Amino acid sequence: MQGKLIVFEGVEGSGKTTQLRYLQDWLQTTEVENILGVEVGGVPPIMVTREPGGTELGFKLRQLLLEPQFADPIAPEAELLLYAADRAQHVEGCLKPHLHQGYLVVCDRYTDSTVAYQGYGRGLSLPLIDQLNQIATGGLTSDVTLWLDVAAEVGLARTQKRGKADRMEAADLAFHQRVEQGFNALYAQYPERIVRIDANQPPMAIAQHIQAVLTPLLTQWFPTPLRPLLGKLKP
Amino acid sequence: MQGKLIVFEGVEGSGKTTQLRYLQDWLQTTEVENILGVEVGGVPPIMVTREPGGTELGFKLRQLLLEPQFADPIAPEAELLLYAADRAQHVEGCLKPHLHQGYLVVCDRYTDSTVAYQGYGRGLSLPLIDQLNQIATGGLTSDVTLWLDVAAEVGLARTQKRGKADRMEAADLAFHQRVEQGFNALYAQYPERIVRIDANQPPMAIAQHIQAVLTPLLTQWFPTPLRPLLGKLKP
Repeated sequence: MQGKLIVFEGVEGSGKTTQLRYLQDWLQTTEVENILGVEVGGVPPIMVTREPGGTELGFKLRQLLLEPQFADPIAPEAELLLYAADRAQHVEGCLKPHLHQGYLVVCDRYTDSTVAYQGYGRGLSLPLIDQLNQIATGGLTSDVTLWLDVAAEVGLARTQKRGKADRMEAADLAFHQRVEQGFNALYAQYPERIVRIDANQPPMAIAQHIQAVLTPLLTQWFPTPLRPLLGKLKP
Repeated sequence: MQGKLIVFEGVEGSGKTTQLRYLQDWLQTTEVENILGVEVGGVPPIMVTREPGGTELGFKLRQLLLEPQFADPIAPEAELLLYAADRAQHVEGCLKPHLHQGYLVVCDRYTDSTVAYQGYGRGLSLPLIDQLNQIATGGLTSDVTLWLDVAAEVGLARTQKRGKADRMEAADLAFHQRVEQGFNALYAQYPERIVRIDANQPPMAIAQHIQAVLTPLLTQWFPTPLRPLLGKLKP
């Protein structure tokens, strides 16, 4: 894979959407061109996506999963399998093709969310979830996961200001606290992949923390291109 | 479980829908009351359902799975996981509750279809499919599976007379021949559960074959009730 995959994770109201937007803007600044030592417009192409919902099929599944529309509740196993189906389609139809083409892909939620929400939150079997994540991703992991860490009650309070809650946001506080605990456990388990970002800070401070984390990674992922040198060699 | 689960399986155009209707009618005749030795209306309650699509969620998933609506094809793993999600919801929200209440449940397609279509047809891993079937069903198997056996080309020719093909019916003949091969392999593997019905016969002959298969099973499943005796003991 020539491209790289950056994933945002966190509880509801952790500020992922805001930070994703900040990151997308920053990645297209001259600051990043300078970090990479490339000409104007020479940064890798960027693609922002999300789970669930990053594909045509996924968009429909996202509606089924998040809209509280059914008279009968969705069985926990069915929910888990729907997230896995969304992920399988997203990996095959979106992530892999873009990574193969050298994109810097930024994704809102990935495998860790399933561990945190369906595993810790709903109490489904963690080995089963690992198995389904493996099936759905074919082994594709993120190059870095930015975990926006904020207490569940703080995050939920933020989402309540937004108005109408989706099916996940409407779950009780104890559920979201178990989800938070799940992210903590994942961080302890995968310290080399997951970077903890204190999401209690003001949004701009969080954005700067993320930029500081990514700066060395970007130069490592995309070494200074040989283009200027090649330009001199080839008339 | 007080109830019993009868499953119909077979390739496209094998006549499942027709036979399901015949069976439902027959189960409510005096013939079956006589077989069971019960009074008028004393047969167990009957519920007819199907996969995919036997629940509210499943109905939406069935649309996603069978309607050729997407510009991007559904990834094989995503398809497999969607069928598993539909099944998990169906087992938890429909099959188990009805079986607990003593229903005779008749279901159009179940786990064998996934083995035949996604395993043999699409070439996905059979152990993986067994695993997903186990997750989705929680171990619930049919009490008898009626396999309407007809050659793939014969079945397909029947469906083509119906007009517009769904996404499955529109797959090529080689695919449907692999599906047929899958049902043959399942029959060899589970002879105690699967009964082969020659579906080349006229519909009424098939229906009679099915009734002959079910007659001894019904008396075994629902032994002559003690109601008349109890009626004499209790004034």
